[in-house]
Amino acid sequence: MKRFFLLSIIFCVFIIRGYGQVADTARYIKTSTGYLMVLRQGDDVFKEISRMAVAEKIPSANFTAMGFVDARFGFFDFKTKEYKPKDFRDVEMASMTGSIAWQKEQPSLHIHGVVTDASFTAFGGHLLSATVGTGSLEITVIVHDKKLERKMEEPLGANVLQLQ
Amino acid sequence: MKRFFLLSIIFCVFIIRGYGQVADTARYIKTSTGYLMVLRQGDDVFKEISRMAVAEKIPSANFTAMGFVDARFGFFDFKTKEYKPKDFRDVEMASMTGSIAWQKEQPSLHIHGVVTDASFTAFGGHLLSATVGTGSLEITVIVHDKKLERKMEEPLGANVLQLQ
Amino acid sequence: MKRFFLLSIIFCVFIIRGYGQVADTARYIKTSTGYLMVLRQGDDVFKEISRMAVAEKIPSANFTAMGFVDARFGFFDFKTKEYKPKDFRDVEMASMTGSIAWQKEQPSLHIHGVVTDASFTAFGGHLLSATVGTGSLEITVIVHDKKLERKMEEPLGANVLQLQ
Repeated sequence: MKRFFLLSIIFCVFIIRGYGQVADTARYIKTSTGYLMVLRQGDDVFKEISRMAVAEKIPSANFTAMGFVDARFGFFDFKTKEYKPKDFRDVEMASMTGSIAWQKEQPSLHIHGVVTDASFTAFGGHLLSATVGTGSLEITVIVHDKKLERKMEEPLGANVLQLQ
Repeated sequence: MKRFFLLSIIFCVFIIRGYGQVADTARYIKTSTGYLMVLRQGDDVFKEISRMAVAEKIPSANFTAMGFVDARFGFFDFKTKEYKPKDFRDVEMASMTGSIAWQKEQPSLHIHGVVTDASFTAFGGHLLSATVGTGSLEITVIVHDKKLERKMEEPLGANVLQLQ
Repeated sequence: MKRFFLLSIIFCVFIIRGYGQVADTARYIKTSTGYLMVLRQGDDVFKEISRMAVAEKIPSANFTAMGFVDARFGFFDFKTKEYKPKDFRDVEMASMTGSIAWQKEQPSLHIHGVVTDASFTAFGGHLLSATVGTGSLEITVIVHDKKLERKMEEPLGANVLQLQ
Protein backbone atom coordinates (compact mmCIF):
# COMPACT_ATOMS: atom_id res chain seq x y z
CA MET A 1 0.00 0.00 0.00
CA LYS A 2 2.82 2.35 0.95
CA ARG A 3 4.58 1.43 -2.29
CA PHE A 4 1.42 2.18 -4.33
CA PHE A 5 1.10 5.55 -2.64
CA LEU A 6 4.71 6.37 -3.48
CA LEU A 7 4.25 5.33 -7.10
CA SER A 8 1.13 7.49 -7.33
CA ILE A 9 3.08 10.51 -6.15
CA ILE A 10 5.87 9.86 -8.64
CA PHE A 11 3.26 9.42 -11.38
CA CYS A 12 1.58 12.71 -10.43
CA VAL A 13 4.92 14.53 -10.42
CA PHE A 14 5.61 13.22 -13.94
CA ILE A 15 2.19 14.35 -15.17
CA ILE A 16 2.64 17.81 -13.65
CA ARG A 17 6.16 18.13 -15.08
CA GLY A 18 4.89 16.94 -18.47
CA TYR A 19 2.03 19.43 -18.38
CA GLY A 20 4.48 22.15 -17.43
CA GLN A 21 6.62 21.37 -20.46
CA VAL A 22 3.63 21.46 -22.79
CA ALA A 23 2.58 24.78 -21.31
CA ASP A 24 6.12 26.08 -21.82
CA THR A 25 6.25 25.00 -25.45
CA ALA A 26 2.97 26.74 -26.13
CA ARG A 27 4.33 30.09 -24.98
CA TYR A 28 6.87 30.42 -27.82
CA ILE A 29 8.00 29.00 -31.13
CA LYS A 30 11.37 29.10 -32.90
CA THR A 31 11.61 31.48 -35.87
CA SER A 32 14.36 32.08 -38.43
CA THR A 33 15.67 35.07 -36.44
CA GLY A 34 14.96 33.84 -32.90
CA TYR A 35 11.66 33.24 -31.11
CA LEU A 36 8.08 34.47 -31.15
CA MET A 37 6.51 34.44 -27.68
CA VAL A 38 2.82 34.93 -26.82
CA LEU A 39 2.00 35.42 -23.12
CA ARG A 40 -1.52 35.38 -21.72
CA GLN A 41 -3.47 36.87 -18.78
CA GLY A 42 -1.62 36.38 -15.49
CA ASP A 43 1.77 35.55 -17.02
CA ASP A 44 4.74 37.22 -15.34
CA VAL A 45 6.66 38.88 -18.20
CA PHE A 46 10.16 38.85 -16.63
CA LYS A 47 9.75 35.28 -15.35
CA GLU A 48 8.56 33.83 -18.68
CA ILE A 49 11.27 35.53 -20.78
CA SER A 50 13.90 34.38 -18.23
CA ARG A 51 12.56 30.81 -18.33
CA MET A 52 12.82 30.78 -22.12
CA ALA A 53 16.38 32.16 -21.93
CA VAL A 54 17.41 29.33 -19.60
CA ALA A 55 15.47 26.54 -21.39
CA GLU A 56 16.75 27.55 -24.85
CA LYS A 57 20.24 28.56 -23.66
CA ILE A 58 19.87 31.94 -25.42
CA PRO A 59 23.40 33.49 -25.52
CA SER A 60 21.98 37.04 -25.84
CA ALA A 61 18.97 38.61 -27.52
CA ASN A 62 16.92 41.72 -28.16
CA PHE A 63 13.16 41.93 -28.34
CA THR A 64 10.20 44.18 -29.13
CA ALA A 65 6.68 43.57 -27.87
CA MET A 66 3.12 44.90 -27.49
CA GLY A 67 -0.01 43.83 -25.65
CA PHE A 68 -2.06 44.52 -22.51
CA VAL A 69 -0.47 44.61 -19.04
CA ASP A 70 -0.26 45.69 -15.42
CA ALA A 71 3.15 47.37 -15.26
CA ARG A 72 5.51 48.76 -12.62
CA PHE A 73 8.01 51.33 -13.86
CA GLY A 74 10.95 52.74 -11.89
CA PHE A 75 12.86 55.98 -12.39
CA PHE A 76 16.45 55.68 -11.16
CA ASP A 77 17.53 58.27 -8.64
CA PHE A 78 21.30 58.62 -9.05
CA LYS A 79 21.64 60.19 -5.59
CA THR A 80 19.91 57.45 -3.59
CA LYS A 81 20.84 54.76 -6.20
CA GLU A 82 17.28 53.46 -5.97
CA TYR A 83 14.34 53.18 -8.34
CA LYS A 84 11.28 55.30 -7.53
CA PRO A 85 8.43 52.99 -8.58
CA LYS A 86 4.94 53.60 -9.95
CA ASP A 87 2.22 51.13 -10.94
CA PHE A 88 -0.03 51.35 -13.98
CA ARG A 89 -2.96 48.88 -14.09
CA ASP A 90 -5.02 47.74 -17.10
CA VAL A 91 -2.96 49.56 -19.69
CA GLU A 92 -2.02 48.84 -23.28
CA MET A 93 1.67 48.06 -23.73
CA ALA A 94 2.00 50.33 -26.76
CA SER A 95 5.72 49.63 -27.16
CA MET A 96 8.18 47.39 -25.31
CA THR A 97 11.90 47.08 -26.09
CA GLY A 98 14.40 44.95 -24.22
CA SER A 99 17.45 42.73 -24.12
CA ILE A 100 18.47 39.37 -22.67
CA ALA A 101 21.99 38.92 -21.26
CA TRP A 102 23.51 37.04 -18.29
CA GLN A 103 24.75 38.04 -14.85
CA LYS A 104 26.14 35.58 -12.28
CA GLU A 105 24.85 32.64 -14.39
CA GLN A 106 21.29 34.03 -14.29
CA PRO A 107 19.34 35.68 -17.13
CA SER A 108 19.53 39.47 -16.85
CA LEU A 109 16.70 41.36 -18.55
CA HIS A 110 16.65 45.08 -19.32
CA ILE A 111 13.22 46.25 -20.50
CA HIS A 112 11.77 49.68 -21.33
CA GLY A 113 8.16 50.28 -22.25
CA VAL A 114 5.43 52.79 -23.09
CA VAL A 115 1.93 52.13 -21.74
CA THR A 116 -1.32 53.95 -22.51
CA ASP A 117 -4.57 54.17 -20.53
CA ALA A 118 -8.27 54.61 -21.37
CA SER A 119 -7.64 58.30 -22.16
CA PHE A 120 -4.82 57.24 -24.57
CA THR A 121 -2.26 59.17 -22.52
CA ALA A 122 1.23 57.63 -22.63
CA PHE A 123 3.52 56.83 -19.68
CA GLY A 124 6.58 54.67 -19.37
CA GLY A 125 10.27 54.17 -18.82
CA HIS A 126 12.34 51.44 -17.17
CA LEU A 127 10.17 48.41 -16.46
CA LEU A 128 10.57 46.84 -12.98
CA SER A 129 7.85 44.19 -13.41
CA ALA A 130 4.84 43.41 -15.58
CA THR A 131 1.97 40.93 -15.64
CA VAL A 132 -0.16 40.30 -18.72
CA GLY A 133 -3.68 41.75 -18.28
CA THR A 134 -6.96 40.95 -20.02
CA GLY A 135 -5.44 40.01 -23.36
CA SER A 136 -1.99 38.92 -24.46
CA LEU A 137 1.57 40.10 -24.97
CA GLU A 138 3.32 39.32 -28.28
CA ILE A 139 7.13 39.32 -28.04
CA THR A 140 9.47 39.10 -31.05
CA VAL A 141 12.94 37.92 -30.01
CA ILE A 142 16.07 38.32 -32.17
CA VAL A 143 18.78 35.97 -30.89
CA HIS A 144 22.53 36.69 -31.14
CA ASP A 145 25.27 34.01 -31.22
CA LYS A 146 27.58 35.62 -28.65
CA LYS A 147 27.01 35.09 -24.93
CA LEU A 148 26.84 38.53 -23.33
CA GLU A 149 27.09 39.59 -19.69
CA ARG A 150 25.70 42.59 -17.88
CA LYS A 151 27.98 44.32 -15.37
CA MET A 152 27.53 47.06 -12.79
CA GLU A 153 29.78 49.93 -13.93
CA GLU A 154 31.06 52.35 -11.28
CA PRO A 155 30.98 55.32 -10.61
CA LEU A 156 28.05 55.35 -13.08
CA GLY A 157 26.03 53.00 -10.87
CA ALA A 158 24.37 51.54 -13.96
CA ASN A 159 24.12 47.89 -15.01
CA VAL A 160 25.55 47.94 -18.55
CA LEU A 161 25.48 45.32 -21.34
CA GLN A 162 29.09 44.26 -22.04
CA LEU A 163 30.00 43.52 -25.66
CA GLN A 164 33.29 41.71 -24.87
CA MET B 1 -13.08 52.00 -86.05
CA LYS B 2 -14.81 49.77 -83.52
CA ARG B 3 -11.73 47.49 -83.52
CA PHE B 4 -9.43 50.46 -82.90
CA PHE B 5 -11.62 51.56 -79.97
CA LEU B 6 -11.48 48.06 -78.47
CA LEU B 7 -7.71 47.87 -78.87
CA SER B 8 -7.37 51.29 -77.19
CA ILE B 9 -9.34 50.07 -74.20
CA ILE B 10 -7.22 46.90 -73.91
CA PHE B 11 -4.10 49.05 -74.21
CA CYS B 12 -5.30 51.38 -71.45
CA VAL B 13 -6.12 48.45 -69.18
CA PHE B 14 -2.60 47.08 -69.65
CA ILE B 15 -1.04 50.47 -68.86
CA ILE B 16 -3.16 50.88 -65.72
CA ARG B 17 -2.44 47.34 -64.54
CA GLY B 18 1.25 47.84 -65.29
CA TYR B 19 1.30 51.13 -63.41
CA GLY B 20 -0.49 49.51 -60.50
CA GLN B 21 2.11 46.78 -60.31
CA VAL B 22 4.95 49.29 -60.38
CA ALA B 23 3.26 51.29 -57.64
CA ASP B 24 2.85 48.10 -55.57
CA THR B 25 6.44 47.04 -56.08
CA ALA B 26 7.61 50.48 -55.07
CA ARG B 27 5.97 50.18 -51.65
CA TYR B 28 8.29 47.42 -50.38
CA ILE B 29 11.43 45.43 -51.09
CA LYS B 30 12.55 42.00 -49.91
CA THR B 31 15.30 41.98 -47.26
CA SER B 32 17.30 39.14 -45.70
CA THR B 33 14.95 39.05 -42.68
CA GLY B 34 11.65 39.95 -44.39
CA TYR B 35 10.52 43.16 -46.05
CA LEU B 36 11.13 46.89 -45.84
CA MET B 37 8.00 48.91 -46.66
CA VAL B 38 7.78 52.68 -47.25
CA LEU B 39 4.28 54.17 -47.40
CA ARG B 40 3.53 57.71 -48.52
CA GLN B 41 0.90 60.42 -47.92
CA GLY B 42 -2.65 59.06 -48.24
CA ASP B 43 -1.69 55.36 -47.96
CA ASP B 44 -3.96 53.27 -45.73
CA VAL B 45 -1.58 51.49 -43.34
CA PHE B 46 -3.75 48.40 -42.58
CA LYS B 47 -4.72 47.99 -46.27
CA GLU B 48 -1.17 48.19 -47.61
CA ILE B 49 0.32 45.78 -45.05
CA SER B 50 -2.58 43.37 -45.70
CA ARG B 51 -2.07 43.61 -49.48
CA MET B 52 1.61 42.77 -49.04
CA ALA B 53 0.74 39.82 -46.77
CA VAL B 54 -1.58 38.41 -49.45
CA ALA B 55 0.67 39.15 -52.44
CA GLU B 56 3.79 37.70 -50.78
CA LYS B 57 1.95 34.87 -48.99
CA ILE B 58 3.57 35.89 -45.68
CA PRO B 59 2.96 32.99 -43.22
CA SER B 60 3.31 35.28 -40.19
CA ALA B 61 5.41 38.31 -39.32
CA ASN B 62 6.23 41.04 -36.83
CA PHE B 63 7.07 44.63 -37.64
CA THR B 64 8.22 47.93 -36.18
CA ALA B 65 7.63 51.29 -37.84
CA MET B 66 7.83 55.09 -37.56
CA GLY B 67 6.64 58.03 -39.63
CA PHE B 68 3.89 60.66 -39.83
CA VAL B 69 0.18 59.74 -39.68
CA ASP B 70 -3.47 60.39 -38.96
CA ALA B 71 -4.33 57.66 -36.47
CA ARG B 72 -7.41 56.23 -34.77
CA PHE B 73 -6.79 54.39 -31.52
CA GLY B 74 -9.33 52.33 -29.59
CA PHE B 75 -9.37 51.36 -25.91
CA PHE B 76 -11.19 48.08 -25.36
CA ASP B 77 -14.03 48.17 -22.84
CA PHE B 78 -14.31 44.63 -21.46
CA LYS B 79 -17.86 45.29 -20.24
CA THR B 80 -19.34 46.46 -23.54
CA LYS B 81 -16.80 44.42 -25.58
CA GLU B 82 -16.31 47.46 -27.81
CA TYR B 83 -13.44 49.81 -28.62
CA LYS B 84 -13.82 53.41 -27.49
CA PRO B 85 -12.15 55.27 -30.38
CA LYS B 86 -10.22 58.55 -30.57
CA ASP B 87 -8.63 60.27 -33.57
CA PHE B 88 -5.24 62.01 -33.65
CA ARG B 89 -4.48 64.06 -36.78
CA ASP B 90 -1.09 65.23 -38.11
CA VAL B 91 0.98 63.38 -35.54
CA GLU B 92 4.38 61.71 -35.60
CA MET B 93 4.20 57.94 -35.31
CA ALA B 94 7.01 57.79 -32.74
CA SER B 95 6.78 54.01 -32.36
CA MET B 96 4.64 51.35 -34.04
CA THR B 97 4.78 47.61 -33.26
CA GLY B 98 2.61 44.93 -34.82
CA SER B 99 2.10 41.43 -36.13
CA ILE B 100 0.69 39.75 -39.23
CA ALA B 101 -1.30 36.51 -38.87
CA TRP B 102 -4.37 35.00 -40.55
CA GLN B 103 -8.03 34.64 -39.64
CA LYS B 104 -10.67 33.03 -41.89
CA GLU B 105 -8.20 33.10 -44.83
CA GLN B 106 -7.75 36.87 -44.46
CA PRO B 107 -4.69 38.74 -43.10
CA SER B 108 -5.21 39.67 -39.46
CA LEU B 109 -3.15 42.63 -38.23
CA HIS B 110 -2.60 43.61 -34.60
CA ILE B 111 -0.91 47.01 -34.27
CA HIS B 112 -0.02 49.21 -31.30
CA GLY B 113 1.49 52.66 -31.60
CA VAL B 114 2.65 55.82 -29.84
CA VAL B 115 1.98 59.15 -31.56
CA THR B 116 3.22 62.63 -30.62
CA ASP B 117 1.84 66.07 -31.48
CA ALA B 118 3.31 69.57 -31.96
CA SER B 119 3.76 69.87 -28.18
CA PHE B 120 5.69 66.54 -28.19
CA THR B 121 3.11 64.97 -25.85
CA ALA B 122 2.67 61.23 -26.40
CA PHE B 123 -0.58 59.29 -26.83
CA GLY B 124 -1.31 55.84 -28.12
CA GLY B 125 -2.50 52.29 -27.68
CA HIS B 126 -4.32 49.80 -29.90
CA LEU B 127 -4.46 51.13 -33.46
CA LEU B 128 -7.85 50.84 -35.21
CA SER B 129 -6.81 52.61 -38.43
CA ALA B 130 -4.09 54.91 -39.76
CA THR B 131 -3.39 56.90 -42.90
CA VAL B 132 0.06 58.27 -43.76
CA GLY B 133 0.16 62.08 -43.36
CA THR B 134 2.51 64.68 -44.84
CA GLY B 135 5.55 62.46 -44.95
CA SER B 136 6.10 58.72 -44.97
CA LEU B 137 5.90 55.60 -42.83
CA GLU B 138 8.88 53.21 -42.77
CA ILE B 139 7.96 49.64 -41.76
CA THR B 140 10.52 46.88 -41.03
CA VAL B 141 8.95 43.44 -41.35
CA ILE B 142 10.50 40.25 -39.89
CA VAL B 143 8.90 37.21 -41.55
CA HIS B 144 8.43 33.84 -39.82
CA ASP B 145 8.18 30.47 -41.64
CA LYS B 146 5.17 29.15 -39.76
CA LYS B 147 1.64 30.11 -40.81
CA LEU B 148 -0.10 31.50 -37.72
CA GLU B 149 -3.79 32.11 -37.01
CA ARG B 150 -5.48 34.56 -34.68
CA LYS B 151 -8.46 33.28 -32.70
CA MET B 152 -11.08 34.88 -30.46
CA GLU B 153 -10.51 33.41 -26.98
CA GLU B 154 -13.47 33.27 -24.60
CA PRO B 155 -14.29 34.29 -21.86
CA LEU B 156 -11.35 36.68 -22.36
CA GLY B 157 -13.03 38.25 -25.39
CA ALA B 158 -9.62 38.97 -26.90
CA ASN B 159 -8.33 38.00 -30.35
CA VAL B 160 -5.11 36.12 -29.55
CA LEU B 161 -2.21 34.99 -31.78
CA GLN B 162 -2.11 31.16 -31.74
CA LEU B 163 1.33 29.55 -31.84
CA GLN B 164 0.09 26.07 -32.79
CA MET C 1 67.53 63.62 -30.98
CA LYS C 2 65.33 64.94 -33.77
CA ARG C 3 64.91 61.38 -35.01
CA PHE C 4 63.91 60.19 -31.53
CA PHE C 5 61.34 63.01 -31.33
CA LEU C 6 59.89 62.02 -34.72
CA LEU C 7 59.70 58.35 -33.71
CA SER C 8 57.95 59.31 -30.47
CA ILE C 9 55.31 61.22 -32.41
CA ILE C 10 54.77 58.27 -34.80
CA PHE C 11 54.55 55.94 -31.80
CA CYS C 12 51.98 58.18 -30.11
CA VAL C 13 49.91 58.38 -33.28
CA PHE C 14 49.88 54.58 -33.46
CA ILE C 15 48.80 54.28 -29.83
CA ILE C 16 46.02 56.84 -30.30
CA ARG C 17 44.83 55.19 -33.53
CA GLY C 18 44.99 51.80 -31.85
CA TYR C 19 43.08 53.06 -28.84
CA GLY C 20 40.53 54.64 -31.15
CA GLN C 21 40.00 51.35 -32.94
CA VAL C 22 39.58 49.46 -29.69
CA ALA C 23 37.08 52.07 -28.52
CA ASP C 24 35.19 51.78 -31.82
CA THR C 25 35.13 47.99 -31.70
CA ALA C 26 33.80 48.09 -28.17
CA ARG C 27 30.76 50.11 -29.23
CA TYR C 28 29.26 47.33 -31.38
CA ILE C 29 29.51 43.69 -32.35
CA LYS C 30 28.36 41.84 -35.47
CA THR C 31 25.27 39.65 -35.03
CA SER C 32 23.52 37.21 -37.39
CA THR C 33 20.98 39.88 -38.40
CA GLY C 34 23.21 42.98 -38.26
CA TYR C 35 24.85 44.70 -35.30
CA LEU C 36 24.33 45.20 -31.58
CA MET C 37 25.57 48.60 -30.40
CA VAL C 38 25.98 49.78 -26.80
CA LEU C 39 26.67 53.50 -26.31
CA ARG C 40 27.70 55.05 -23.00
CA GLN C 41 27.42 58.38 -21.17
CA GLY C 42 28.44 61.29 -23.39
CA ASP C 43 28.22 59.40 -26.70
CA ASP C 44 26.55 61.31 -29.55
CA VAL C 45 23.87 58.92 -30.86
CA PHE C 46 23.69 60.22 -34.47
CA LYS C 47 27.49 60.45 -34.75
CA GLU C 48 28.18 56.93 -33.48
CA ILE C 49 25.53 55.25 -35.64
CA SER C 50 26.82 57.21 -38.66
CA ARG C 51 30.42 56.19 -37.91
CA MET C 52 29.39 52.55 -37.76
CA ALA C 53 27.49 52.90 -41.06
CA VAL C 54 30.62 54.29 -42.76
CA ALA C 55 33.12 51.89 -41.12
CA GLU C 56 31.01 48.79 -41.85
CA LYS C 57 29.75 50.02 -45.24
CA ILE C 58 26.13 49.29 -44.17
CA PRO C 59 24.00 49.44 -47.37
CA SER C 60 20.82 50.22 -45.38
CA ALA C 61 19.42 49.21 -42.02
CA ASN C 62 16.68 49.61 -39.45
CA PHE C 63 17.11 49.70 -35.70
CA THR C 64 15.29 49.76 -32.38
CA ALA C 65 16.85 51.00 -29.15
CA MET C 66 16.32 51.94 -25.49
CA GLY C 67 18.39 53.58 -22.77
CA PHE C 68 18.93 56.89 -20.98
CA VAL C 69 19.51 60.16 -22.88
CA ASP C 70 19.39 63.90 -23.30
CA ALA C 71 17.25 64.34 -26.42
CA ARG C 72 16.23 67.13 -28.79
CA PHE C 73 13.02 66.52 -30.72
CA GLY C 74 11.70 68.64 -33.59
CA PHE C 75 8.14 68.97 -34.90
CA PHE C 76 8.12 69.85 -38.59
CA ASP C 77 6.16 72.96 -39.53
CA PHE C 78 5.04 72.44 -43.13
CA LYS C 79 4.45 76.18 -43.56
CA THR C 80 7.88 77.40 -42.51
CA LYS C 81 9.55 74.11 -43.56
CA GLU C 82 11.47 74.16 -40.29
CA TYR C 83 11.63 71.96 -37.21
CA LYS C 84 10.38 73.53 -33.96
CA PRO C 85 12.81 72.02 -31.43
CA LYS C 86 12.46 71.10 -27.76
CA ASP C 87 15.02 69.60 -25.37
CA PHE C 88 14.42 66.87 -22.79
CA ARG C 89 17.22 66.24 -20.30
CA ASP C 90 17.87 63.17 -18.13
CA VAL C 91 15.08 61.07 -19.61
CA GLU C 92 14.62 57.37 -20.27
CA MET C 93 14.59 56.51 -23.98
CA ALA C 94 11.57 54.23 -23.62
CA SER C 95 11.46 53.44 -27.34
CA MET C 96 13.64 54.43 -30.29
CA THR C 97 13.05 53.38 -33.91
CA GLY C 98 15.12 54.42 -36.90
CA SER C 99 16.70 53.73 -40.25
CA ILE C 100 20.09 54.11 -41.91
CA ALA C 101 20.27 55.13 -45.60
CA TRP C 102 22.57 57.36 -47.68
CA GLN C 103 22.32 60.86 -49.10
CA LYS C 104 25.10 62.54 -51.12
CA GLU C 105 27.54 59.77 -50.08
CA GLN C 106 26.89 60.47 -46.38
CA PRO C 107 24.91 58.31 -43.91
CA SER C 108 21.36 59.64 -43.55
CA LEU C 109 19.62 58.71 -40.30
CA HIS C 110 15.92 59.03 -39.58
CA ILE C 111 15.10 58.44 -35.91
CA HIS C 112 11.90 58.69 -33.87
CA GLY C 113 11.73 58.19 -30.15
CA VAL C 114 9.62 58.24 -26.99
CA VAL C 115 11.23 59.56 -23.80
CA THR C 116 9.89 59.51 -20.24
CA ASP C 117 10.78 61.66 -17.22
CA ALA C 118 10.81 61.18 -13.42
CA SER C 119 6.98 61.42 -13.39
CA PHE C 120 6.84 58.65 -16.07
CA THR C 121 5.11 61.03 -18.51
CA ALA C 122 5.92 60.30 -22.17
CA PHE C 123 7.04 62.75 -24.84
CA GLY C 124 8.63 62.27 -28.22
CA GLY C 125 8.59 62.46 -31.98
CA HIS C 126 11.24 63.14 -34.61
CA LEU C 127 14.69 63.09 -33.00
CA LEU C 128 17.03 65.94 -34.01
CA SER C 129 19.91 64.94 -31.70
CA ALA C 130 20.61 62.83 -28.65
CA THR C 131 23.45 62.23 -26.20
CA VAL C 132 23.60 59.23 -23.89
CA GLY C 133 22.97 60.26 -20.26
CA THR C 134 23.86 58.54 -16.97
CA GLY C 135 23.56 55.00 -18.28
CA SER C 136 23.71 53.44 -21.71
CA LEU C 137 21.81 53.08 -24.98
CA GLU C 138 21.35 49.58 -26.46
CA ILE C 139 20.74 49.61 -30.23
CA THR C 140 19.71 46.52 -32.25
CA VAL C 141 20.51 47.00 -35.94
CA ILE C 142 18.98 44.85 -38.73
CA VAL C 143 21.06 45.26 -41.90
CA HIS C 144 19.63 45.03 -45.45
CA ASP C 145 21.66 44.04 -48.54
CA LYS C 146 20.42 46.80 -50.83
CA LYS C 147 22.01 50.26 -50.73
CA LEU C 148 19.21 52.77 -50.19
CA GLU C 149 19.15 56.54 -50.66
CA ARG C 150 17.03 59.21 -49.00
CA LYS C 151 15.70 61.98 -51.25
CA MET C 152 13.85 65.26 -50.64
CA GLU C 153 10.42 64.84 -52.25
CA GLU C 154 8.61 67.99 -53.43
CA PRO C 155 6.01 69.44 -52.97
CA LEU C 156 5.84 67.26 -49.83
CA GLY C 157 9.01 68.83 -48.45
CA ALA C 158 9.87 65.56 -46.71
CA ASN C 159 13.07 63.54 -46.93
CA VAL C 160 11.82 60.08 -47.95
CA LEU C 161 13.56 56.68 -48.01
CA GLN C 162 13.74 55.49 -51.66
CA LEU C 163 13.29 51.78 -52.27
CA GLN C 164 14.66 51.86 -55.85
